[in-house]
Amino acid sequence: MKPGFSFALEATDPTGGRAGRLVTPHGVAATPVFMPVGTLATVKGVDVGRLAETGASIVLGNTYHLHLRPGEAVVEAGGGLAAFMGWPGPTLTDSGGFQIFSLADQVKITDEGAAFRSHIDGAAVRLTPEASMQIQQSLGADIAMQLDDVVGLPAERARVEQAMRRSLDWAERCLAAHTRPDQALFGIVQGGLDPDLRRVSAESLAAMPFDGLAVGGLSVGEGAEAMRSTLAATMPVMPTDRPRYLMGVGRPVDLIDGVLAGIDMFDCVLPTRCGRTALAFTFAGVLKMRHARLVNDLRPIEEGCPCPACRHSRSYLRHLFLAGEMLGPILVSLHNLTVYARLMARLREAIVAGRLGAVAAELRQRIDGEAE
Amino acid sequence: MKPGFSFALEATDPTGGRAGRLVTPHGVAATPVFMPVGTLATVKGVDVGRLAETGASIVLGNTYHLHLRPGEAVVEAGGGLAAFMGWPGPTLTDSGGFQIFSLADQVKITDEGAAFRSHIDGAAVRLTPEASMQIQQSLGADIAMQLDDVVGLPAERARVEQAMRRSLDWAERCLAAHTRPDQALFGIVQGGLDPDLRRVSAESLAAMPFDGLAVGGLSVGEGAEAMRSTLAATMPVMPTDRPRYLMGVGRPVDLIDGVLAGIDMFDCVLPTRCGRTALAFTFAGVLKMRHARLVNDLRPIEEGCPCPACRHSRSYLRHLFLAGEMLGPILVSLHNLTVYARLMARLREAIVAGRLGAVAAELRQRIDGEAE
Repeated sequence: MKPGFSFALEATDPTGGRAGRLVTPHGVAATPVFMPVGTLATVKGVDVGRLAETGASIVLGNTYHLHLRPGEAVVEAGGGLAAFMGWPGPTLTDSGGFQIFSLADQVKITDEGAAFRSHIDGAAVRLTPEASMQIQQSLGADIAMQLDDVVGLPAERARVEQAMRRSLDWAERCLAAHTRPDQALFGIVQGGLDPDLRRVSAESLAAMPFDGLAVGGLSVGEGAEAMRSTLAATMPVMPTDRPRYLMGVGRPVDLIDGVLAGIDMFDCVLPTRCGRTALAFTFAGVLKMRHARLVNDLRPIEEGCPCPACRHSRSYLRHLFLAGEMLGPILVSLHNLTVYARLMARLREAIVAGRLGAVAAELRQRIDGEAE
Repeated sequence: MKPGFSFALEATDPTGGRAGRLVTPHGVAATPVFMPVGTLATVKGVDVGRLAETGASIVLGNTYHLHLRPGEAVVEAGGGLAAFMGWPGPTLTDSGGFQIFSLADQVKITDEGAAFRSHIDGAAVRLTPEASMQIQQSLGADIAMQLDDVVGLPAERARVEQAMRRSLDWAERCLAAHTRPDQALFGIVQGGLDPDLRRVSAESLAAMPFDGLAVGGLSVGEGAEAMRSTLAATMPVMPTDRPRYLMGVGRPVDLIDGVLAGIDMFDCVLPTRCGRTALAFTFAGVLKMRHARLVNDLRPIEEGCPCPACRHSRSYLRHLFLAGEMLGPILVSLHNLTVYARLMARLREAIVAGRLGAVAAELRQRIDGEAE
């Protein structure tokens, strides 16, 4: 890895789960780690002090969104993503590939790059591997991601293979264009649900001087079982000496699966998006905060949770959502982020103790159901 | 005052400004004090931990709103307003009089009380002095307010006099209906801009066993000059041994005027409403956070301000507002509440030092302009 960066494994569980330590110029993350998504240089509704209290260590920003607003020049003038948003720890930016796939209008992707219309004002935007590197170097996160060609699933094998091979080509162009010595660069494995394509992608990327590798192109409609089997096919060919990042995943149960498969890093908008829509995660399942049965429920969302939401009753939180008060989304977002961080900490502990299989099985029993 | 309550003056400035100490069953407030408005048992966008950090001591809830949502029974079952919202200090509820005037539909006010339609769902609601007391006793704030008949200004003298006399009648009915021994009850002086009517109202209320008196019916369109002259006519006939509360006022410059006139307590939605609409108060004037000139302004809103917003640059805060991110309103609300609390603390210090006139004059020079 680049100077100022290191990744060391502290323990590997018999299941393949890994506990490690990722060092960056802005600080350290104990892995496996969940990275809250701060799309526009803010985790929605959460100030950075409260964010740190959830147990978060690395925060993610979205290159596509930040390029459109406020523009990377403003972020750079503000000292780079971490200083601009006031986050005192490590940051990571994605490359824009996923947002071009999911958000942009009138997208045209060629071997050269992507041309599309901004989802904000319809302005014409071009994003090539070189442009993504230039933008991400200006944004200045500790970790940048290669530009990749993301395919929605299900898709024709020819299209999946084209996207995988194009992503490999773009990987080389990103490495060539990336010059910032204090920023790590990760490659992204593609290949849809095809084990052979995934293997080709992972082996090719492993031979390149990336500081870490991500598994991309999942959580795009393929379902949990397909995600599990694809991870099972991909992980054995991923290098073990560098961090492994599963992009955009997922529900708590998906994080457990990912950790079992040997993933070190995760990100997902679910904790905050669900927080805004009154869905609270707990270790005993999901709780719908608008439900009428909570009207006089004086218990916290989850006993023993140290988050600011759990200083209040379910009755109060329900009232906030029914009255349309901002504080409801704020508090349940904080709660969900806290649950995700605590889940990662528990899994890490289990790995260190060599008990991940048992702990994961126990957690899975209740975490995916409906809470009482 | 009732058991568990006390109000003691610590200093009176030559201008008439007063520094005091208001003790309630839930805690103490140093006066003059600004009370943030937590309409629906939440100061919009602000968690109670952050709210305490702004320097707030008493929080206000709105009886009309809480009666409609979630209903006083839910608040009471949650332990009363303070416990329900998790606020570890004193609380006050208004009576609903102002909201009937400003928010309700198809209002019909008679000597008996008010009948109107809910602004939420059009349901028929009746609010009498007795009902307001019953609701406020269920809400269980430390301080309750009498129901009053609020008139928009300008208005016919006959209507202003009718409302003032009706409010006196309702004052007696509120005192008769109020039985909760751990809740203080304040009367409300009415009389529009007419010094004679204000005097009659204040003298009549002063003779009743209220725990404090408020000046109501201002900040309803009369302008700053009319407010000042009305205060000048009213304050000399207000009892000096009980707290004096100027309801619904106002801008920082209005608070300075109020303190000079001998007011002890204030409330207003301005700090949070302006915070949500990108207007930041500072001791050097108002700052429009969306302004293009802030695009690369790396200064905080105000140097030396201890609030969470001022850990960020103006450039970042502007970006949050332009991108429609919740964190902008959250942070600038916190900033504005902090400015209001700091303003009160400075005025209090000046009173104790006997220098209120000079300090107020100095503060007035810049606080009402546009910040640079």
